[in-house]
Amino acid sequence: MLSAVEQAIEGAILNLDHQEIKKLLTKLPKGKRLRAKLILYIAKENKESIKLASIAEMIHAASLLHDDVIDDAMQRRGVESINALYGNKNAIMLGDILYSIGFFELVDMGSIIAKSISNAVVQLSIGELDDVSLSKQFNVDAVIYRDMIYKKTASLMEACAYSAAILAGKNADAYALYGKNLGIAFQMIDDLLDITSDAQTLGKPALHDFVEGKTTLPYIYLHNRLNNEDKKKLEAMHARSLDMKEQEWILLNIKKYDIIQKCYLEAKELVLEALEAIKDEKNQKLNSIAKEMIDRSF
Amino acid sequence: MLSAVEQAIEGAILNLDHQEIKKLLTKLPKGKRLRAKLILYIAKENKESIKLASIAEMIHAASLLHDDVIDDAMQRRGVESINALYGNKNAIMLGDILYSIGFFELVDMGSIIAKSISNAVVQLSIGELDDVSLSKQFNVDAVIYRDMIYKKTASLMEACAYSAAILAGKNADAYALYGKNLGIAFQMIDDLLDITSDAQTLGKPALHDFVEGKTTLPYIYLHNRLNNEDKKKLEAMHARSLDMKEQEWILLNIKKYDIIQKCYLEAKELVLEALEAIKDEKNQKLNSIAKEMIDRSF
Repeated sequence: MLSAVEQAIEGAILNLDHQEIKKLLTKLPKGKRLRAKLILYIAKENKESIKLASIAEMIHAASLLHDDVIDDAMQRRGVESINALYGNKNAIMLGDILYSIGFFELVDMGSIIAKSISNAVVQLSIGELDDVSLSKQFNVDAVIYRDMIYKKTASLMEACAYSAAILAGKNADAYALYGKNLGIAFQMIDDLLDITSDAQTLGKPALHDFVEGKTTLPYIYLHNRLNNEDKKKLEAMHARSLDMKEQEWILLNIKKYDIIQKCYLEAKELVLEALEAIKDEKNQKLNSIAKEMIDRSF
Repeated sequence: MLSAVEQAIEGAILNLDHQEIKKLLTKLPKGKRLRAKLILYIAKENKESIKLASIAEMIHAASLLHDDVIDDAMQRRGVESINALYGNKNAIMLGDILYSIGFFELVDMGSIIAKSISNAVVQLSIGELDDVSLSKQFNVDAVIYRDMIYKKTASLMEACAYSAAILAGKNADAYALYGKNLGIAFQMIDDLLDITSDAQTLGKPALHDFVEGKTTLPYIYLHNRLNNEDKKKLEAMHARSLDMKEQEWILLNIKKYDIIQKCYLEAKELVLEALEAIKDEKNQKLNSIAKEMIDRSF
């Protein structure tokens, strides 16, 4: 089903008739194509939905290329990132090319969809900026964190679901809520995995986010629970490399206060709300995507 | 006349309601606003043309932000660049924000204009990639160089002139040719100034392009003229810092073979063709922009 989307992306790139870009793009990991799936599952597979899905994935890929430069990430889904392989400059330029192809193709989708998707890119760019800014201090405000991950991760998924529903003449607001909640929950689970997975599974060291200065929801909740002395201890570990003892102390306290479970339940709540929003649609595939996201133990 | 454009840009940014972005953007040099001028001079000052001009300038600013990161440029128009002031990451993110606001606003301009401008951004992104790739060797092919500067610099000016003419119901192809030739000539003159200006005037060291590996038209023509021994000598100086003696040798040979004059005449030819394309329009301001570009001695 996704092969038509892959073909559309390849086609857009082949159209440029540029050897170097073609070569660089073969190194781009394809990922889960979650945004493409959302679109195809909502709007069914047809010429327009395939085009929209290819646009969404090109824009998403562009954002990841720039994110990896900004986060100095040397790996992406367990393989070397483009910036690691070809340097930051190529990653920036390739991102700009994918963004602009995406926007160019978006014009054909009509102004409602074009505005929805391009506004999501504004939001995700701001979300990335906020993510970096928040990393400079120990952010202890869960509201600020949720707003940031909404922008950074969920805004594009929300716009994809909304736009696909517009294409299909379905209830766009319901699907938008589904996409938004799924996106926020997805990022929350991703942030949890940074704590619960070992380095091998995730392709990056455990507690990587905290070392990078990112106080994701578990660290915010942990901080809220600790006494003043331990709050200071945790703050002193922020945004620097941790020795084994420090890592263990964090993990022990996360366990002690049931932080993972608390965060997981918050993500689950969002997913259940997403399912509720589209319950009248009886869309088995969308229900499965949502359920799979929370159908795991931590 | 440009103040309405500045207000439109400020308005788009204020709409985001984001303190940090507002602050970063006050540090962005405004520049000559050449693209805004082209648009306003072609389409006259009205609500639509002002909006298009603000979009073009936001997109142009975004491209410069990323260019400066890619070129490691610490100055822009004699003042410190955003990447120098706030680091590469902020420059990348701010560029992404400006690009996406530009694309979002572009949707309102109708699909012909939106496609023209967004296609130009694809071209300028490819042009930037080509510029970097070409810098790795001593490119001796003037055709490849002209194609690269067309993409990197002229494609957006061409699209601005074309789109403004569409807005005004004027001869879009004629204005597109004007914009394209003006853009190529502009880049050629800019490349000449890197050789003829001293460090103080230009805000960067003389022969900076060559040191960075960029074999602009003068170096290509010089290379073509030199004997084999001197060709090799020139090639050996490529993409590294030059001592005074080496600089003098290059400048002496450029003078000996009248390279500056040859390049200037090529730029002038393009400008005259631009003027010819719009001669029936009797647009005094556009004529002046073109003439001012070549009305100088080298």
